[in-house]
Amino acid sequence: MPPVPLTDRVLMGPGPCNPYPEVAAAFARPLLGHLDPEFIALLDDTNERLRQVFRTTNPLTFPVSGTGSAGMEAAFVNVVEPGDAVVVGVNGVFGERMCDVAGRCGAEVVRVEAPWGQPLDPQSLLDAHPSPRLIAAVHAETSTGVRNDVACLGQHLRHQDAEALVLVDCVTSLGGIPVEVDGWGVDLAYAGTQKCLGVPPGLAPFTAGERAVARLVDRPRSWYLDLGMLARYVTGEGARVYHHTAPVSMVYALHAGLGALLDEGLEASWARHRECGEALQAGLVELGFELFAAEGHRLPELTTVWVPADRLPAGMTEADVRRTLLERDGIEIGGGLGEFAGKV
Amino acid sequence: MPPVPLTDRVLMGPGPCNPYPEVAAAFARPLLGHLDPEFIALLDDTNERLRQVFRTTNPLTFPVSGTGSAGMEAAFVNVVEPGDAVVVGVNGVFGERMCDVAGRCGAEVVRVEAPWGQPLDPQSLLDAHPSPRLIAAVHAETSTGVRNDVACLGQHLRHQDAEALVLVDCVTSLGGIPVEVDGWGVDLAYAGTQKCLGVPPGLAPFTAGERAVARLVDRPRSWYLDLGMLARYVTGEGARVYHHTAPVSMVYALHAGLGALLDEGLEASWARHRECGEALQAGLVELGFELFAAEGHRLPELTTVWVPADRLPAGMTEADVRRTLLERDGIEIGGGLGEFAGKV
Repeated sequence: MPPVPLTDRVLMGPGPCNPYPEVAAAFARPLLGHLDPEFIALLDDTNERLRQVFRTTNPLTFPVSGTGSAGMEAAFVNVVEPGDAVVVGVNGVFGERMCDVAGRCGAEVVRVEAPWGQPLDPQSLLDAHPSPRLIAAVHAETSTGVRNDVACLGQHLRHQDAEALVLVDCVTSLGGIPVEVDGWGVDLAYAGTQKCLGVPPGLAPFTAGERAVARLVDRPRSWYLDLGMLARYVTGEGARVYHHTAPVSMVYALHAGLGALLDEGLEASWARHRECGEALQAGLVELGFELFAAEGHRLPELTTVWVPADRLPAGMTEADVRRTLLERDGIEIGGGLGEFAGKV
Repeated sequence: MPPVPLTDRVLMGPGPCNPYPEVAAAFARPLLGHLDPEFIALLDDTNERLRQVFRTTNPLTFPVSGTGSAGMEAAFVNVVEPGDAVVVGVNGVFGERMCDVAGRCGAEVVRVEAPWGQPLDPQSLLDAHPSPRLIAAVHAETSTGVRNDVACLGQHLRHQDAEALVLVDCVTSLGGIPVEVDGWGVDLAYAGTQKCLGVPPGLAPFTAGERAVARLVDRPRSWYLDLGMLARYVTGEGARVYHHTAPVSMVYALHAGLGALLDEGLEASWARHRECGEALQAGLVELGFELFAAEGHRLPELTTVWVPADRLPAGMTEADVRRTLLERDGIEIGGGLGEFAGKV
């Protein structure tokens, strides 16, 4: 069976992106067992790099063995019990997904909506319920290109001595724009590897602070994502207790990608994303495109434009344009989702 | 940050094993988007290879985006509802794990036990409950080296027109000893990539038959492992509906490993494992070791021996011997689990 030929693409879609060259080298390393002292040391170092990128000192910081959505599920399933009120900000696909995941945990989901393309109002999230278990929001909405203001949530709650935990989806923000888990008082955060970390998809960087760890549910609905069990393998002193077999090669890849990012410097990466994003967005406007995301809340690392329907070649749809770009030029961009499919 | 040096090991433990050379080449392929037609074609081809290896025509056959334990959770969470009776065979760590996972789904778990090192009695599994939702067993118990007789379960149930589904854990059997999903009437099966498939850990090959698909629960507890949603991306005709971002590089690796396995031929792989396992076991007995697993039910691909306590060098434990093997000779073997830690 000959290997299937695969074309090298320029990945300009909403993820995966082209990985750092260091990642391919890491994949080529010989495999180690998941309890090998050399692998444990590499995992520890990966977790320390993740702490630097999340800007946290949380001991429970590690890559969940699944994609970003597994990180989302791990965040909810470990702190939400049936009947808990959970406030969720919804202004795109991933806020909707949070409602679905929280609902499956038996939560009373309190939705706080904003139109797609507009940011969430943080005060509305804080005011939505008198005593929620959790307030959850997506930092960078991949489906709209909007940055939500999540920095103030934790600080407000701490000033009020409120019990609620703050959960932030950093899938498309981590590494690309400032994320300050400790500085913002975020209790639970997760990301994906395939966005601004420059690593193929497959792991969900995850961090949980002291307040979240103190409130872990006794026996979460998911065995695979049980943080109490996972902590005995991924962190801690002395012997590691086997839970599941770690995805060794993907950890190599993440370790290498984080190394490349930290070699550049986190602030330098933010500045590079800002500079490139602003240049792209200014250029698109100059070409006559209309940007979709609200001004002042545009992500530099993910740009959304309205499809200029009147300028499409006769008989061509937006999907045809994307297919032509991919097949003729090897460039991938992404299509709009939900009611904006074919329009953004 | 220099890359952490890693030593090349001879991996003789219970997994991961050293991957096929073709896998390293696959990891080096350029990344594709998860909706790229070239990637979808490669995923389709991977699924077709999995069907050949599972010996099934099940359309819903694909790699779950997590390790083998995620496959286990996917199998239970999609067909078990609170109050369902679930019969589980328990003669090792992974039967115990099944009880935990089923219990978290709210199942009434009916345990059918055998001592560690002994096989399960299939008739006891069939007789354990008058109308279970599911009968579940581990084919190859990684913690003991025992092969359980799972071939007859489905056939018995079908002859009796019983409603129960049959779920088989094939993590350490798939590719190494005969697995006949269709021939045995297995409704749900999963495996891991890091055992007899020769691929690093990170994915769980999975298959669900028509009877299982007809009884999927409406809204499983896990969003990430929701088979109904996953099916709209991983299988089917026409447009694929995005669920989560597929772990593209790991799919490359699995595709390559399955290619190497099928190039050799499945029967040839079974014969090779049998020949090597029998030679190893005969040699160990000749050296004075006592095999742990019951005769007639010994896995050729995973061999367990009692630690000859009287022959350990003075002051050395079983763990010291394994550490010396690893550090001095670069050879990894595994230690016993549970009450057999330090003894097997």
